[in-house]
Amino acid sequence: MNVVSAGLIVIGDEVLSGKTQDTNTQVIAKALNAAGIQLTEARTIADDTQVIVKAVKEFSATYDYVFTTGGIGPTHDDITAASIAEAVNQPLVTDNDSFALLRDYYQKQQQEFTEARQKMAKMPKGAEPIPNPVSMAPGFRYENIYVMAGVPRIMKAMLANILPTLQGGVSNLSYGITTERGESFLAAALSHLQQEYPDVSIGSYPRFTESGGTTATIVVKHHEKALVLEVADKVRAVITTDGGNILSDDFLE
Amino acid sequence: MNVVSAGLIVIGDEVLSGKTQDTNTQVIAKALNAAGIQLTEARTIADDTQVIVKAVKEFSATYDYVFTTGGIGPTHDDITAASIAEAVNQPLVTDNDSFALLRDYYQKQQQEFTEARQKMAKMPKGAEPIPNPVSMAPGFRYENIYVMAGVPRIMKAMLANILPTLQGGVSNLSYGITTERGESFLAAALSHLQQEYPDVSIGSYPRFTESGGTTATIVVKHHEKALVLEVADKVRAVITTDGGNILSDDFLE
Repeated sequence: MNVVSAGLIVIGDEVLSGKTQDTNTQVIAKALNAAGIQLTEARTIADDTQVIVKAVKEFSATYDYVFTTGGIGPTHDDITAASIAEAVNQPLVTDNDSFALLRDYYQKQQQEFTEARQKMAKMPKGAEPIPNPVSMAPGFRYENIYVMAGVPRIMKAMLANILPTLQGGVSNLSYGITTERGESFLAAALSHLQQEYPDVSIGSYPRFTESGGTTATIVVKHHEKALVLEVADKVRAVITTDGGNILSDDFLE
Repeated sequence: MNVVSAGLIVIGDEVLSGKTQDTNTQVIAKALNAAGIQLTEARTIADDTQVIVKAVKEFSATYDYVFTTGGIGPTHDDITAASIAEAVNQPLVTDNDSFALLRDYYQKQQQEFTEARQKMAKMPKGAEPIPNPVSMAPGFRYENIYVMAGVPRIMKAMLANILPTLQGGVSNLSYGITTERGESFLAAALSHLQQEYPDVSIGSYPRFTESGGTTATIVVKHHEKALVLEVADKVRAVITTDGGNILSDDFLE
């Protein structure tokens, strides 16, 4: 069973200050999951060259795929491309195709192709650009590192271009059963079930409802469908034997 | 200038699979920021003992304060307390006060105080409980490590109990000026301004509006109010000299 792993580095002072609610992580997590790639870690770090270099080196050596978001715009605080170049020991060079695309793009808009805008065509030597149909300034891939924009709309467009090129592994199937029965009623029986099926992931996720009640979703995960259904049957029995109701009961996306 | 740093560890398989949108990070980031504590890193990791132990050890040695969310419920997959105990080299023991509170709480509700529920009174030896007015099961503090629930409502209640006990440092003031002028028009002038004021953080945050336009928010950060206002004046001049409009112009929370 070949598990393919990924790490995500969110380069984001604005997330760490609480100014911005990150939504990219969930979008990327879902897309990778659907592609049979397991997001194993998501790390939000400051816009600081040495911090970026350290994280990128560590992630690149640890995970099959590394994704970054943020810091590839035209302003002085956009230091991601230069930081990645330093991390992979390559000079930061202008990608000629990206330069030409950007030049034409601004020309069509009758806008000056300033030095700041030219900067957006720079990437580590040997990198290949990731197209950006929204605002043209590309991301790039260097070996297993995929560098994307932080603006959600642009990130999504880049991710759509990246996904078909990724090699997925075994894909986990997730089955979720939600009940209003509190998870502490079910805990002992679920623990036994987990011992009976050590290779299957059985998780319990409590939630408060708006009306002040609680629900628990029991999530069963494994790559073999038959095994997931077998364990889901037993989870259902645990809940109903305990007198709990079933609010929803199906495979999760 | 004494900067107080914090690291946040989100223990969350459900975040990494994309099932759940994390909102705790922003709540914690804002609260710490207001308390003069700088969230320096936020790391989302899997519900895996060895991964938790490694992150907690690293964070505890690196940051003034460490916060964790998630994994302190009654079920078998709630492994945070045991993992933290391992990280700090202490046995996992029952906190007698928490045990009594939980026992009384379930008694009042005429519910059995099961072994699974009793587990929620366990914490590393030497830890002190963090009260949970929502559902009674406590978090805990061990040295500089603050362990909180993952359910947002409970996390917030715990955080409210923690905040008055934290020692803040110098608090950064943030001033934000938002314009519809694209950031690449302003990039060169802002870069010069940054060189002129190397100690002041000047960031540019582009955003796409729902109507398809773009805005840029230029954020000026420093702990001295006069200096922030001085640089904000210059940022405003950069924007208006360039023909840009001003959509908003004020200190940020």
